[in-house]
Amino acid sequence: MREYENLVNGDMVSLIKKGEKDGAETIWDRMEKMKTQCGFGVKGLCCRNCAMGPCRISPVAGKGADKGLCGATADVIVSRNFARMVAAGTAAHSDHARGIIHLLHKAEPNGDYIIKNSEKLKKLAEQWDIDTKCKDIYEIGRQVSETALNNFGKPFGEITLPKTVPNVRKDLWRKEKIMPRAIDREVVSIMHATHIGCMADANEMLKMSLRTAISDGWSGSYMGTFISDILFDTPKATKTESNLAVLEKDQVNIVLHGHEPSLSEMIVLAVSDPELIAKAKELGAQGINLVGMCCTGNELSMRHGTKNGGNFLQQELAVITGAVEAVIVDVQCIFPSLAELSKKYHTKFITTSPCARIEGSDYIEFDENIAYESAKKIVLSAIENYKNRNKENVYIPDNKTSFMVGYSVETIVEHLDKVAQENEKGTLMPLIKAITGGSIRGIAALVGCNNPRIKQDYNHIQIAQKLIENNVLVIATGCSATALAKAGLANKEASKFAGNKLKGICEALDIPPVLHMGSCVDISRILQLAGETANLLNVDISALPLAGSAPEWMSEKAVAIGMYVIASGIDAWLGVIPQVTGSDKVVSFLTNEVEEITGSKFFVETDPINTANQIIERIDMKRSRLGI
Amino acid sequence: MREYENLVNGDMVSLIKKGEKDGAETIWDRMEKMKTQCGFGVKGLCCRNCAMGPCRISPVAGKGADKGLCGATADVIVSRNFARMVAAGTAAHSDHARGIIHLLHKAEPNGDYIIKNSEKLKKLAEQWDIDTKCKDIYEIGRQVSETALNNFGKPFGEITLPKTVPNVRKDLWRKEKIMPRAIDREVVSIMHATHIGCMADANEMLKMSLRTAISDGWSGSYMGTFISDILFDTPKATKTESNLAVLEKDQVNIVLHGHEPSLSEMIVLAVSDPELIAKAKELGAQGINLVGMCCTGNELSMRHGTKNGGNFLQQELAVITGAVEAVIVDVQCIFPSLAELSKKYHTKFITTSPCARIEGSDYIEFDENIAYESAKKIVLSAIENYKNRNKENVYIPDNKTSFMVGYSVETIVEHLDKVAQENEKGTLMPLIKAITGGSIRGIAALVGCNNPRIKQDYNHIQIAQKLIENNVLVIATGCSATALAKAGLANKEASKFAGNKLKGICEALDIPPVLHMGSCVDISRILQLAGETANLLNVDISALPLAGSAPEWMSEKAVAIGMYVIASGIDAWLGVIPQVTGSDKVVSFLTNEVEEITGSKFFVETDPINTANQIIERIDMKRSRLGI
Repeated sequence: MREYENLVNGDMVSLIKKGEKDGAETIWDRMEKMKTQCGFGVKGLCCRNCAMGPCRISPVAGKGADKGLCGATADVIVSRNFARMVAAGTAAHSDHARGIIHLLHKAEPNGDYIIKNSEKLKKLAEQWDIDTKCKDIYEIGRQVSETALNNFGKPFGEITLPKTVPNVRKDLWRKEKIMPRAIDREVVSIMHATHIGCMADANEMLKMSLRTAISDGWSGSYMGTFISDILFDTPKATKTESNLAVLEKDQVNIVLHGHEPSLSEMIVLAVSDPELIAKAKELGAQGINLVGMCCTGNELSMRHGTKNGGNFLQQELAVITGAVEAVIVDVQCIFPSLAELSKKYHTKFITTSPCARIEGSDYIEFDENIAYESAKKIVLSAIENYKNRNKENVYIPDNKTSFMVGYSVETIVEHLDKVAQENEKGTLMPLIKAITGGSIRGIAALVGCNNPRIKQDYNHIQIAQKLIENNVLVIATGCSATALAKAGLANKEASKFAGNKLKGICEALDIPPVLHMGSCVDISRILQLAGETANLLNVDISALPLAGSAPEWMSEKAVAIGMYVIASGIDAWLGVIPQVTGSDKVVSFLTNEVEEITGSKFFVETDPINTANQIIERIDMKRSRLGI
Repeated sequence: MREYENLVNGDMVSLIKKGEKDGAETIWDRMEKMKTQCGFGVKGLCCRNCAMGPCRISPVAGKGADKGLCGATADVIVSRNFARMVAAGTAAHSDHARGIIHLLHKAEPNGDYIIKNSEKLKKLAEQWDIDTKCKDIYEIGRQVSETALNNFGKPFGEITLPKTVPNVRKDLWRKEKIMPRAIDREVVSIMHATHIGCMADANEMLKMSLRTAISDGWSGSYMGTFISDILFDTPKATKTESNLAVLEKDQVNIVLHGHEPSLSEMIVLAVSDPELIAKAKELGAQGINLVGMCCTGNELSMRHGTKNGGNFLQQELAVITGAVEAVIVDVQCIFPSLAELSKKYHTKFITTSPCARIEGSDYIEFDENIAYESAKKIVLSAIENYKNRNKENVYIPDNKTSFMVGYSVETIVEHLDKVAQENEKGTLMPLIKAITGGSIRGIAALVGCNNPRIKQDYNHIQIAQKLIENNVLVIATGCSATALAKAGLANKEASKFAGNKLKGICEALDIPPVLHMGSCVDISRILQLAGETANLLNVDISALPLAGSAPEWMSEKAVAIGMYVIASGIDAWLGVIPQVTGSDKVVSFLTNEVEEITGSKFFVETDPINTANQIIERIDMKRSRLGI
């Protein structure tokens, strides 16, 4: 038995085996080839930040080198490496947001991109003191966009934060000197501070990382989500299906994978284009079947109910089905292996972003200035590929699961209105009352990736099950949300797995016990929920019975997320050990001292049941401190 | 005999031996402890950009892993690692510039920072279409500062480049899609593109690195230098001395080490403060002796003739003399080892920048709003330490060398005026005529660091000697310039080592054959010289008989520099092999294909004499193409 059979479930095993037969390499093959990981790298003890190195610190005290050539200690090296991960994660999220904000600037009443939610636009404009009276909505859009872009590069003062950040938290950030200035500047600050001969104080390096991460969560990601809603509308509760079985045997299957709605929103339109549907039928297909994957999958299902093919570790397997005419991608979390893999099948692997060119792919640059035209061109190229499908070698698994998605804060409030007193309608007060009254013990956010070193989805599912059993409401985004959707925990029937109190709430509100809140960038919706709740209760976020967990994380974005969650006063559980164990000081800061600064900290726990129990314990501690 | 005896010259051997006796650890001790370097890291084959890894690619084809877990190949991994070095180098230079530009914004007629060169300010204001008529010079300063800061974060359009960039070069950058948008944004773009699942095309990754590097050279560094001249005046030719023997036995010795003139300019003022001098004398010292080191040393000697203690590898040895009351530092290239080392002596190690906190140092944050007061406080703390010096354990070597420094382009033009025809006064035309006429065969810029893996200064000196012998004028910055200064090649008498033609020019212009142009950020002065020369000749920079070499480089800044030099059309020789040899594709792009894009390329050559010969060969090739 090969190792992967312990690491994935049945459907996926069948597909990996099909891949083996087809001569297609997958991540599990590569993992076997990789054998032992570098012991220095795993602990964060290797430094390549100059050409005197690479230097590596012996993990055994008194044996080998205890400092880099410049004198950098294990603490310094580990903290710098960690900080660069935060910088990269922040850069990725924020560049995504920058793209969306530029779209708002380009939006026109008759253009490809229009403003779908002018109320939300006006709300933001008012927060930013932009005059909304007697002004064309697109003119307001441009002004909001310019103010938003200013947060990336403003040369003076603090970043502009949303009102949802409690004032007490802002004051804390100022006092601790971790209030961000501008997003790009904070990323650059880390890159400067990690240059040879700069920062050599682990705790200060980590504080700088907190500052940068705050600019990600509360500005980059936050604006990304908010302005996506302005352009593409706020998600509403929608039912759809997940897992690879959503691929259709007799249709042109297009897998849309990546992150940014700018591309995917146009592809959604294009696949409904009668001309293109006719073209598909002309070539013998029954239609065009659009399937989302990873965060693009989440964005699509949130706003359009598009079916979701699966999460991170399923991207290769989609191709191996032999039923996919094209995988269309933009940025982030895309395996470069798809280039070689797709050539084993008829699948076209179409890259579209100058930031994520992949050698061996078909590059069709997505031009936002002629967005719909670009999207049609890309979809047409997929349709034309239908004729090349080898129908003899198609295997689509059977399992798919229906789930609910689209729980923006606004949608949650709508559901709360079902039970709200008149004067509390349109607010989170009913949720707060459920928490203070004990029907909801607390809220836990499950987020983040898959990691091939952990059985796919296992941690996500185990933790969620245990939490809802114990009356903790689970909110989820990203690959975690998809994992829970596939496991059947994100549909209304799943309330039967919840503890009685939570079950009662779910039934009263007509919601599942696991609320799918969107993509990774949508963790900003979780921040919004936390901030609004804290403001209503007139406490800091750190006082709330809230927790976060990334039980199968792998990306640098997840590191940035972890840090902004901690900076916001929410405890975070990591199920994969970060590359920091080479420094006791860094470990101790992240899992201990940081609590004195931000009121929350990291817990590193690889066992999912222990994780759930620890979350419940901390939630109970916070409840008891709140006197509820 | 220990290994270091082959790697440093006599004076330094004596100091390292003193250190051994005193129980003080140096970089050479750490290098012996480090033993073998990681073979993956040396070749750039190790990826830590996500937590599925670290992954490492076998350098032997067919053996071990040939791809990372995500499918990233050696080409992808090597190119991403290289790009992150460019991002960090750009971030470091540009953050330095940002600090200077903020100072211009704060400058006031009666403040600590004043505008010393209003002509240069007006020149820049006019270039940027800022109205200079009837306006207070400080108001112009603020407007120039705001426009300059805009280059870091402007949300729309191209970066604002100086007029010295030939139009043909700008068009080339646009055509190749490597025209930068804004400095911070370009750094962030690289951090995004190197995130898991983004860029997986080595050549595109390297082109993105070129774009980012251009924003460093022609914007960040360029503005840093230009605005430093506005605030602190343009350097003029000055004579001073270099090497550790500039430390004074009977004075309070303050070593000022780092990069940014904001701190050092105030310390220069403070050490002349009668109150502080009196305090020093009261404590038994004959005075206060300020000694610069590394790039701060270059900045100080350029503008004030301050003596220069030496370059990068001498920072620890200065402390080991036992004669240094304080090492005061700001950012970049500072060994964190100084914290532990200084405790073996009486030396105070004073850090001042929030971007470079060093554990174990005395942190006295330099507050630019009360700059002079902060500087006095820092100097006083050094003076008070004089009483703790153990006079029995002081050893200051004997060797020091006088040299000329301060060759800004303006100063070069002043010297050229000595031989200029009336209508060519105030221009570089006499230099161009010397080149086209053959008296100067070409110009080679020697730049960059020391690297302990190469005998200190050896490559710099060997290359410079060979070049001037062959009538190539050498211009130098950074640790390279200090190396040549110490070797006696940057004084006027050194023209005797030059070929007859160059010697004649040096005598006619009253200049040394090696022109010390300042710090690493001042490589922008070299760009200015190249751009103005190209514009006067009405050719692109790549047509000029110019070359650059970083024969002992080590820092990520040097990688960024190398890339902007190449992007500008100037060939660059590296004497230390960059961590890219794991990818034939990356090596081939940098040393071959890039020439088709930018008209210049990297040469990697560890032998200094070969380097000089290759430089001469390429210069001759460019001469012959120009028909001169």
